[in-house]
Amino acid sequence: MRLSRYFLPVLKETPAEAQIASHRLMLRAGMIKQQQAGIYSWLPMGFKVLRRIEQIVHEEQARAGHLAIQMPTLQSADLWRESGRYDGYGEEMLRITDRQGRDMLYSPTAEEMVTDIFRAHVSSYKQLPLTLYQIQWKFRDEIRPRFGVMRGREFLMKDGYNFDLSKEDALHAYNRHLVSYLRTYERMGLQAIPMRADSGPIGGDYTHEFLVLAETGESEVFYDSEITDLTFGDREIDYDDVAQCQSVLEEFTSRYARTDETHDEAAFNEVPEERRRVARGIEVGQIFYFGTQYSEALGASVQTPDGSKVPVHMGSHGIGVSRLVGALIEANHDDKGIIWPEGVTPFHVGIVNLKQGDVSCDSACEALYRAFLDHGLDPLYDDREERAGAKFATMDLIGLPWRITVGPRGIAANKVELTCRRTGESEEMPAEEAVEKIVSIYAGL
Amino acid sequence: MRLSRYFLPVLKETPAEAQIASHRLMLRAGMIKQQQAGIYSWLPMGFKVLRRIEQIVHEEQARAGHLAIQMPTLQSADLWRESGRYDGYGEEMLRITDRQGRDMLYSPTAEEMVTDIFRAHVSSYKQLPLTLYQIQWKFRDEIRPRFGVMRGREFLMKDGYNFDLSKEDALHAYNRHLVSYLRTYERMGLQAIPMRADSGPIGGDYTHEFLVLAETGESEVFYDSEITDLTFGDREIDYDDVAQCQSVLEEFTSRYARTDETHDEAAFNEVPEERRRVARGIEVGQIFYFGTQYSEALGASVQTPDGSKVPVHMGSHGIGVSRLVGALIEANHDDKGIIWPEGVTPFHVGIVNLKQGDVSCDSACEALYRAFLDHGLDPLYDDREERAGAKFATMDLIGLPWRITVGPRGIAANKVELTCRRTGESEEMPAEEAVEKIVSIYAGL
Repeated sequence: MRLSRYFLPVLKETPAEAQIASHRLMLRAGMIKQQQAGIYSWLPMGFKVLRRIEQIVHEEQARAGHLAIQMPTLQSADLWRESGRYDGYGEEMLRITDRQGRDMLYSPTAEEMVTDIFRAHVSSYKQLPLTLYQIQWKFRDEIRPRFGVMRGREFLMKDGYNFDLSKEDALHAYNRHLVSYLRTYERMGLQAIPMRADSGPIGGDYTHEFLVLAETGESEVFYDSEITDLTFGDREIDYDDVAQCQSVLEEFTSRYARTDETHDEAAFNEVPEERRRVARGIEVGQIFYFGTQYSEALGASVQTPDGSKVPVHMGSHGIGVSRLVGALIEANHDDKGIIWPEGVTPFHVGIVNLKQGDVSCDSACEALYRAFLDHGLDPLYDDREERAGAKFATMDLIGLPWRITVGPRGIAANKVELTCRRTGESEEMPAEEAVEKIVSIYAGL
Repeated sequence: MRLSRYFLPVLKETPAEAQIASHRLMLRAGMIKQQQAGIYSWLPMGFKVLRRIEQIVHEEQARAGHLAIQMPTLQSADLWRESGRYDGYGEEMLRITDRQGRDMLYSPTAEEMVTDIFRAHVSSYKQLPLTLYQIQWKFRDEIRPRFGVMRGREFLMKDGYNFDLSKEDALHAYNRHLVSYLRTYERMGLQAIPMRADSGPIGGDYTHEFLVLAETGESEVFYDSEITDLTFGDREIDYDDVAQCQSVLEEFTSRYARTDETHDEAAFNEVPEERRRVARGIEVGQIFYFGTQYSEALGASVQTPDGSKVPVHMGSHGIGVSRLVGALIEANHDDKGIIWPEGVTPFHVGIVNLKQGDVSCDSACEALYRAFLDHGLDPLYDDREERAGAKFATMDLIGLPWRITVGPRGIAANKVELTCRRTGESEEMPAEEAVEKIVSIYAGL
C-alpha cells in the first residue's frame, strides 16, 4: 500500500478520554473511531490487524479439527427461556423486540443456539466428537464500557463448542482447546498464561482463563515465576492423541497460576518465595467444560453403542478477537508508539523515502515496494511529500516491526537502512539484502 | 476434509417450507439452519461458500483501490436523525433501546456512519479520492421474509462508499465500481447484468442494479438479448484510467436492460423484435451516485485547491454477499442438486471411495487426498462406510464441480474415474493424471 492512497488518520494529540496505552495508541494511530460508548468503527489499519488475528484463529481451529460455522447475531428469547438463562442474565443482555412483537436478543454467547443446531441434526454417537465454532460480533451492554476495545459493548469473539459422548471425551476436547489456544497466542507473539478461573454464568467445574501480563490488566494475578519460562514452540501436535494433549495441559497448568477470583493464599505460599509473583493480567480467552447442563435443558441427546440415549457432554471456549488487538498493544509498545509482533502486524515492512521526488530515491523505493509484493508480502510505502521527521514519527507510532529508509546519500553508496522497531537498531546494506532479510523473517513464521 | 469428520447434515426429505430451489437445496445440503423467520445459522459447508464469496469481494475491492473497514452493527439513532432518515425509514428498521435508554438501531446500511467517519478525519481535497467499504451483517425487519437467504432479515452485505471532490470524480468512482462488480461476479461464475434502476430510499439519479437471470427472480426484467453475449473476460483494467472505466460502462450499459421499476415500453420497442427478452432476475448488487445529499446533511466538507469549502460528492455500492449464495444456486442446479462454479465451490474436488476398508482403494484415496492438499487445494474425501449409491447422491446434492471415483476394478487397472458435475461426463485415467487435470483447472482461475 502507498501511504498517499491509504486512509491512516493519525492524531497528533493524545485523546483525553483514553486512560490506557492501547486505547490511546489505537486512536492516535487511526485504527479505530468511537461511535458510541463502547462501540467502535475499525478503520483500515485496525481492521487489517483484526483480520490477521481472525486468520490465525481460523487456521489453528482447523488444525485442531474444529469446524467453522456462523450463527446470527440476533437470537430468539424463547431459546434462552428453554435453557433458563433469559430472565437471569441481567441488564448486560441487550433485549430487542421486532416489528411483530417477538422478543429477541443480541447474542452475548451462543451455548443455546449451537445446542439447538446440534439437537436438530445429531442423534448418534457415531457423529461424535464434534466441535463447532464461529467468529462473530457479540454484544454485552456494559454499564461502564472503557479501555477502548478492551471492554467494549460490541466486540468480536471466537466462540467454540464441543459435543462429546462422555466426560472423558469432553475433557480431551478441553485439553485440545487448551493446546490449540497456546499455539494460537504464541503465533501472535503473545504469552498468554492459562490460570485456574471461576466459571461465572456459563457454569461448570473445569475452566481456565488465558491471561496476558500487563500493568493495565483488570485482574490481579498470582503465579509461580517458572510458568513464564514455558513456551509452546514449534512442537508437533497430534490433536487426536489424548495422552499428548493431556501432558501439554499438565506442563502448562501444574504450577500455581490463578486470578484474584480463585486465589488461594495457602497454596500460593507453598511456592518458594523467590518464585512468587503478584502482577496484573488481561484476560484474552477462556475454556470451559460444563458437562450436560445445556444438553439436558435443551434435549440434546445421542444414542450410545448399546442403544440407550444420553445427553452429550459439552464445553465452550472463547477467544476475545477484538480485545486481543488491545492486549497486543498493551504488551507491545513504548513511548513512541506500537511495536507489532511479526505475526499480526498490519504491514510487514515500512518503506520511508527521505527525498520524495528525487529520481534515484523514488526508483529505489518503487523497486523495494515491487520486490516485497512479488514475495507475497504487504509493504507500506510512505510516498508522501513530508519531512523525514514526520515520516519517522508516523512509522514509530503505527509500529511496523521493520522499516527500510531510503535516502540520497545511501543510494549513492548502494545502501539502504534497515531498522528494527523493537530494538531501534539500524544497519546499512544493499537493498536486495534488506529484502532477503525481511522475506526470510516472515518465511519463518 | 474427510467426510467422516465433517458436519454435513444432509436431509433426505425436501423441506416443506422451501418454495424455491436454492432454499430447498441449501437446507437439503446442510448449508444452513433456520433459527427464526429470515434468520439463519450457516453450517460448515454454507459458511465455506460464504467465505469464498467474501474473499473474492475483498480481492476485487483491493484491486480497485478501495479500503476495507468494519463498522458496528448497532448505530446511534441520533446519527440517523441528523440525516433525516430516522423517522422516515419505516418498520424495516429494527429499533433498539439500550440499558441507559438510548435509541439505537441495527444498521440496514451505513451512509450516515461512514460519513461521520469521513467528517471526523478528512478536511482537504488532498486526501481524496477515498472509497471505504465493509462486509458486515445487516438487519432489515422484513414483514414477510422468504426464499431462504435470498430475502432474509439478518444478511451479510458488502457496502462501499466513495468520497470525491467533484461530480465528475464521483462518476468515475461509480464507473470503477461497475467495472469491479462485473469482474467480481464473473469470478464467481455468474453473469450479472447491470440494469438501470430506481434509487429508492438511498436517493440519487444514477443507479444500476446487477441482476442474475433466473426463473425464480423477484423482478421482471426487459433486455436486449445482445447483452448476454458480453463477457468481461481477463482484460487488464487500470482503475485509475477514467476513459477506460467509462468505456466499459458504456459497453455494458448501452443496450436496453431494465427492471420493471424503470421499464419504458416505447424504448424497449425500439430494440429489434427478435432481440427483445422478458425474463426474471435476482438482484445481487446495486451502485448509486447521490451527490452531496449526505455530505450536506452531515457536514462532510473539504477544502478545495482555491481555499473554499465544498461538500463532498458521494455514492454507495452494495453486493448482497449472503444473497449471492442463493442466487448462485438458482443459476446453477439440476434435479440432483447444486452445481457449484469452480470460483466459489466449498471443496475443489470430491473423492468417492467405492469400497471403504479395501486396502488398495483406501490407499489410492489417501494418496489422492494428500496430493490435492499438497497442491493447496481443498478436497472432500467421502471415507464413510456407505453404499456407492448414497455416496454419489450426496456428492451430486452438494454439487462439487469435480468428482474422482475410486473402485477396486479401476485400481487393478491403475485407473480412477473423473466426473464433471455439470456435464455428467466421466473419463477413466491414472490417478496422477486426474490430479494434474484438477490442479490445472483451478490454477487457471
